[in-house]
Amino acid sequence: MIIQKSTNPRISNFDPENFSFGNMFIDHMIICEYENGKWGDVKLMPYGPLPFSPAMMGVNYGQACFEGMKAYKDKDGQVFIFRPEKNFARINKSANRLAMPEVTEEIFLGGLKALVDLDRDWIPYGEGNSLYIRPLIFATEEALKARIANKFMFAIVATPAKSYYSEPVAVKISDYYSRAANGGVGSAKAAGNYAASFYPTKLANEEGYEQIIWTDDSTHEYFEESGTMNVFVRINDTIYTPPTSEKILDGVTRDSFIQLAKRRGIDIQIEPISVKKVIEAHKNGTLKEVWGVGTAVVTTVFKAIGYQGERLDLPQLPLEESFALTLQKDLVDIQTNVAEDPFGWRVLVEKNILENA
Amino acid sequence: MIIQKSTNPRISNFDPENFSFGNMFIDHMIICEYENGKWGDVKLMPYGPLPFSPAMMGVNYGQACFEGMKAYKDKDGQVFIFRPEKNFARINKSANRLAMPEVTEEIFLGGLKALVDLDRDWIPYGEGNSLYIRPLIFATEEALKARIANKFMFAIVATPAKSYYSEPVAVKISDYYSRAANGGVGSAKAAGNYAASFYPTKLANEEGYEQIIWTDDSTHEYFEESGTMNVFVRINDTIYTPPTSEKILDGVTRDSFIQLAKRRGIDIQIEPISVKKVIEAHKNGTLKEVWGVGTAVVTTVFKAIGYQGERLDLPQLPLEESFALTLQKDLVDIQTNVAEDPFGWRVLVEKNILENA
Repeated sequence: MIIQKSTNPRISNFDPENFSFGNMFIDHMIICEYENGKWGDVKLMPYGPLPFSPAMMGVNYGQACFEGMKAYKDKDGQVFIFRPEKNFARINKSANRLAMPEVTEEIFLGGLKALVDLDRDWIPYGEGNSLYIRPLIFATEEALKARIANKFMFAIVATPAKSYYSEPVAVKISDYYSRAANGGVGSAKAAGNYAASFYPTKLANEEGYEQIIWTDDSTHEYFEESGTMNVFVRINDTIYTPPTSEKILDGVTRDSFIQLAKRRGIDIQIEPISVKKVIEAHKNGTLKEVWGVGTAVVTTVFKAIGYQGERLDLPQLPLEESFALTLQKDLVDIQTNVAEDPFGWRVLVEKNILENA
Repeated sequence: MIIQKSTNPRISNFDPENFSFGNMFIDHMIICEYENGKWGDVKLMPYGPLPFSPAMMGVNYGQACFEGMKAYKDKDGQVFIFRPEKNFARINKSANRLAMPEVTEEIFLGGLKALVDLDRDWIPYGEGNSLYIRPLIFATEEALKARIANKFMFAIVATPAKSYYSEPVAVKISDYYSRAANGGVGSAKAAGNYAASFYPTKLANEEGYEQIIWTDDSTHEYFEESGTMNVFVRINDTIYTPPTSEKILDGVTRDSFIQLAKRRGIDIQIEPISVKKVIEAHKNGTLKEVWGVGTAVVTTVFKAIGYQGERLDLPQLPLEESFALTLQKDLVDIQTNVAEDPFGWRVLVEKNILENA
């Protein structure tokens, strides 16, 4: 690893009590470049701009995928990352689907740990606080041909984080716009999937909904995801979530919720969820909770669901009755080292990794 | 317009008799930045890298779309661009679908003409030669939130061009992978659409096919596009091409072919093309030609179609019998000022635009 520490660190200007998420970056970043069929050296360097031409293939043809991860600080100042091997596996799955080169464990996990260790002072302690970490791969070759690029960059950047949403939100079940095609890239964290969702979401916002529950593009009869999250539905005391597929992201938080629900003995069914079933459950009073899960937000509880012009309100359950909030607490307690971790999900970030290497 | 001419032009190193397409850029580029809800000044400046962070939203969330256009030089050295108003309208349609700001005519057409005029010496003269022009819009804001960006860049870069393909190619009808979802972004020239197509195309390449004929993702029973082109099928003496839709790009070359076919009195039907119909026509000997059209290639004739493990060979018709080649010649003759232009498609690029402004 090539190390170039910042000579002008900004950490002294960072107020962990008062910051906004997503546009303040930690002092360093990881960079690794792919050329001539192989990855070069991993570089840990000051965060900042690099020279890219507007002919860069990443912004012309969209070869770009990313991961979202978090590091947490416990009361003793220890730093943990959560299930990083899942993100490592998934970025390579995304890269494959987008015809980009896979990264190695050394590049991804080695770079990640070195970066988080070096900039550990940027991780805010406290409820809901974390460091949001963004590994990504994108095409950097300058060429105007719609073909697989020959040059790529792997990078890790990070920003101090609070929860995206604190309040329950209203969501609209899509009956026209779609997120993913059969035989498409829905299960990849492909950059283009997100851009495609912004306009339909804007339209939903104008109707008074914060997010969209995406449905299958052929019939709009089955739930897929909600916003940028996996979706869970509770009818009576059973939780349902759609199976992962080529259209549905294999979310780390989704998988963690499933395991946590099973540990509590909650009945959880991984099966297609029809819109009809959810609407009927609402009508007959058995629809208890609907929520989304993802790394950035952990959990967003839905307070209302819009469907074909109708707005169906959902009960807001207190923590002790809510599966969504109970499982969220179970998860966050493990992530932040407040609870035991029988799953082995937490990975301690050792101190002084660079010095001890 | 802010003008900064190159102090180190590379034009003297350019050999119009011997160059490869797509990775040699003309001396200048157009840049215009969007911030605080409005576009700034158009800048004409030397082509080259600009500072962008890996946290740039364009490569993280894929808000990026582009156009492909060409400028041609005639025997007298006059320079023409082809139907630029169509590309101007379409980039704004793409921008809308991806929740990006529209550009003005002054930015797009004004920038385009000034750039092509200034670097007119980069346009190679001769059959199949042109300047390939790439306008694009992408999100430049540095932020790790999956939302509409607040900062964008419009750019125009360009590269001397020969035809992509000279030889007929074999194509595979997709029965699994898809290019576009219902309610998705297929009709936008969204960066992500291209990345999504690379891996399926690589698989098709391994089976001996150069491109994929994309079919509808729900049933794979209907033709949509071929590779990055619109697709045409000739059965007996009738041409068929699918109607544009939210899944099918409204191609400028497609529209030009339709008008040119009508002018010649060729029967052309704009209607869904079923795979079944094409396969049956091949079996009974009425399938005469299948081809793709697009700005980069103008026309690619297909010599074989693969479908469910079978390879169906197509006759290779000489120019005087081929609708594909005849219409291609009609089009190129207009583009290059060899023929009259009754449609008003050619737009002359005036000389010394900057000096006369």
